[in-house]
Amino acid sequence: MKIEITLPNWLNEQLLKEGEERVWSTPEERMRWVLALAHRNIEEATGGPFGAAVFEKDSGRLVAAAVNRVVPSQTSISHAETLALALAQQKLATHDLSAPGFPVMELVASAQPCIQCFGNTWWSGVRGLVIGARAVDVEAIAGFREGPLPDQWPELLENRPEPLPAVTVTRDLLREEAKAVLQRYRASGGLVYNAGGS
Amino acid sequence: MKIEITLPNWLNEQLLKEGEERVWSTPEERMRWVLALAHRNIEEATGGPFGAAVFEKDSGRLVAAAVNRVVPSQTSISHAETLALALAQQKLATHDLSAPGFPVMELVASAQPCIQCFGNTWWSGVRGLVIGARAVDVEAIAGFREGPLPDQWPELLENRPEPLPAVTVTRDLLREEAKAVLQRYRASGGLVYNAGGS
Repeated sequence: MKIEITLPNWLNEQLLKEGEERVWSTPEERMRWVLALAHRNIEEATGGPFGAAVFEKDSGRLVAAAVNRVVPSQTSISHAETLALALAQQKLATHDLSAPGFPVMELVASAQPCIQCFGNTWWSGVRGLVIGARAVDVEAIAGFREGPLPDQWPELLENRPEPLPAVTVTRDLLREEAKAVLQRYRASGGLVYNAGGS
Repeated sequence: MKIEITLPNWLNEQLLKEGEERVWSTPEERMRWVLALAHRNIEEATGGPFGAAVFEKDSGRLVAAAVNRVVPSQTSISHAETLALALAQQKLATHDLSAPGFPVMELVASAQPCIQCFGNTWWSGVRGLVIGARAVDVEAIAGFREGPLPDQWPELLENRPEPLPAVTVTRDLLREEAKAVLQRYRASGGLVYNAGGS
């Protein structure tokens, strides 16, 4: 028995084309690129309206990128953030992106992590989390039920018990552009893959 | 790019041997079997001290089973509960275990879900969650940092917003036996794979 989760062909091709040399210098550049992935995932009908990527925070090099694949991969874990983190970990051959010897890494996500991706962020070892749309946008515009994040979740990531490294949280980066992606999904009639057969 | 997560060979062999006919009638039978998986995962040194399985709640038939694979699979998502849910979903070819036409399914876990597996339970479509050890046991005995579950998390699973189906939570089933598995891991010197290079 094994679990296998793939990215869409268009994203694999795009990642090959970008190559290893490109650098995404600013937070806005990183977010705009991630939003473009989410947007293309809608247009290609290859998953839900979300994109995410792991970057080396200081150098701006890309470690891994993903889009939502819940329906095509037949697994509810296949949120963009979770896949980007897992791809980064398998690429670097570690379950812990904050293991000694690695540069500081950050997760850039088109929308606020749901309860599952919040938990995955907790365990992953990323030390930055940069978010476009808020959960309230995801729920109000696209209809997903994001789950009950603990109150003060950004503070809980920033002030973690030893030995866990702090995760710096940046919210509302290009929020209006991020909301526009969710609006496009709604207008496209995209599937809302909550549990409960909806 | 793809993510691939496998089970240990001993578990694949065991699942083949059990066959499709076996029925686990009582909650205790299901939990004892899951605890044995967690225990064997320690003895074989194939992952962390956790096991989980998805059962058809009424018939007692097994849908999927897993053990923790964080370190061997080099992914922090590879908790036993998450893998059991994903294996069940891919086997049944659906991201939603509560989709119309499926029997009621429950997740039986050797220990209380961490923040990540709580979130995964939220999205998965299981309608029952049966737990052995508590988070306080996992943290105190084995040293994992399970993350900040929201207050009243069992009530939040049981009373979810429409259209999400209720998840019935049963706690402390064979809790002492479940704690003994965690104690065995600690005694074995098993790795505590929190983020932060620990």
